[in-house]
Amino acid sequence: MTYSQLSNAIKSKGSFLCVGLDTDPGLIPSLLQKDTNPIFSFNMEIVDATAPYCIAYKLNTAFYEAEGTRGMEQMLMTVKYIRKKYPSMLIIADAKRGDIGNTAIHYAKAFFETYGFDAVTLSPYMGRDSIFPFLGYEDKWSIVLALTSNNSAEDFEMEQIDGKEDVPAEPLYSNVIRKVMNWGTKDNTMFVVGATRPEKIAEIRKYCPDHFLLVPGIGAQGGSLSNVAKAGMNKNCGLIANSSRSIIYASHGEDFASAAATSASRVAAEMATILA
Amino acid sequence: MTYSQLSNAIKSKGSFLCVGLDTDPGLIPSLLQKDTNPIFSFNMEIVDATAPYCIAYKLNTAFYEAEGTRGMEQMLMTVKYIRKKYPSMLIIADAKRGDIGNTAIHYAKAFFETYGFDAVTLSPYMGRDSIFPFLGYEDKWSIVLALTSNNSAEDFEMEQIDGKEDVPAEPLYSNVIRKVMNWGTKDNTMFVVGATRPEKIAEIRKYCPDHFLLVPGIGAQGGSLSNVAKAGMNKNCGLIANSSRSIIYASHGEDFASAAATSASRVAAEMATILA
Repeated sequence: MTYSQLSNAIKSKGSFLCVGLDTDPGLIPSLLQKDTNPIFSFNMEIVDATAPYCIAYKLNTAFYEAEGTRGMEQMLMTVKYIRKKYPSMLIIADAKRGDIGNTAIHYAKAFFETYGFDAVTLSPYMGRDSIFPFLGYEDKWSIVLALTSNNSAEDFEMEQIDGKEDVPAEPLYSNVIRKVMNWGTKDNTMFVVGATRPEKIAEIRKYCPDHFLLVPGIGAQGGSLSNVAKAGMNKNCGLIANSSRSIIYASHGEDFASAAATSASRVAAEMATILA
Repeated sequence: MTYSQLSNAIKSKGSFLCVGLDTDPGLIPSLLQKDTNPIFSFNMEIVDATAPYCIAYKLNTAFYEAEGTRGMEQMLMTVKYIRKKYPSMLIIADAKRGDIGNTAIHYAKAFFETYGFDAVTLSPYMGRDSIFPFLGYEDKWSIVLALTSNNSAEDFEMEQIDGKEDVPAEPLYSNVIRKVMNWGTKDNTMFVVGATRPEKIAEIRKYCPDHFLLVPGIGAQGGSLSNVAKAGMNKNCGLIANSSRSIIYASHGEDFASAAATSASRVAAEMATILA
């Protein structure tokens, strides 16, 4: 998916919502537990219920890996289902991978070829080797961790890095964004910036005006949509706001799909107002 | 596996070699390509050939993930095979995972329970949230990335962090080691430090004398074993040196297993001299 395809999807749908399919088998409604593929059954119903209100789905690989090969099989089934039925959706692997070049090639193959995702989240810790192999894929996206929504982002991401002749002293996450902006372009790179820190999003927009930002933490983690939009929106929207638990677990009863639709539609309505 | 079990294994075997099973289906000898599970067949032969010379195996998850669920199935088969036939081996998932606490719980379940590894490599970028869930498992190990063997370790790992009242100005990797040392203990935490930087290993030993260091980059990546040992060995050895490509791909012919054995035995002989 290209930058303009993504911008157009947001414009035409009036939403920049990403629904996070962090599907925990222990939290799936009991009526689905006896299905052959309960995770996929749950995902299918959630996707059909929420597709009118979002432009992206994000599958957190941890939830699928924890279930072994059966989990990975259902991750693949979910990607294929979304791709076929909703071809304009951006499908993100929230994998946070990061390894040396020889290994990164295999991760890129795994997510972009084997599983068929459009985008994958990456950890920048090991430097450019761990990002470059992903940037070689046309119309695919590397979404690099910058400033995450968790409290312990303070441990390293917010540590202050010394200035040099040509770069100011700045926090690590900011150093990450500036460097990665030089390795990729706005057409193949996004950054993860948590919704819990809108004041930082505004700062980031000063030196990173055009890139899409993937903003997790709306909903269960307490981030405010209007604050995020005020701080981070650019002329192409430039934001993808993710919500997982507050949508997919809006109800644990038989009405889980309609409750998810209601929850997603509420967020989408707020987004439509913001975009207008 | 406990710290003393690991130290004893090293002592009794006279080796601190870890063989990296970075098994690329494209590099498997042609005589195995027609097997139902070629990756597993290859691993089995490599393990049987090298087990006398090493104390650990490290499976890099990227190589298995790239093959989809069939790859993950063969990763699991490999872990089970090693566990049953060589119960004193440390089995490491080289996964470099790192995510918020709610997600990290699922990664810990995946690697320690579902796949049955003894240890997993972790990326520290997102801070303590991404490490703590792994530390709760008894006799399991978190191996945290500190200073890696690749060139682009300079991009972030070696960036200088500002000093504070109680901590000196230091590179990011050093900041990582000092903080993570406070979160875990020498009995459940190790650090990854690349063999390509022995002078840094010596510096690390000044403030991190007791922890095991997992040292990749011996062999194909150019690290020297004797320099690493001189810089990093402590009274319990304290080192696990990994070699992947130079052992498992010592030959691409029918003699691949015996060539791997020869290559591993050569490293082990050097280690025996060093340990003595």
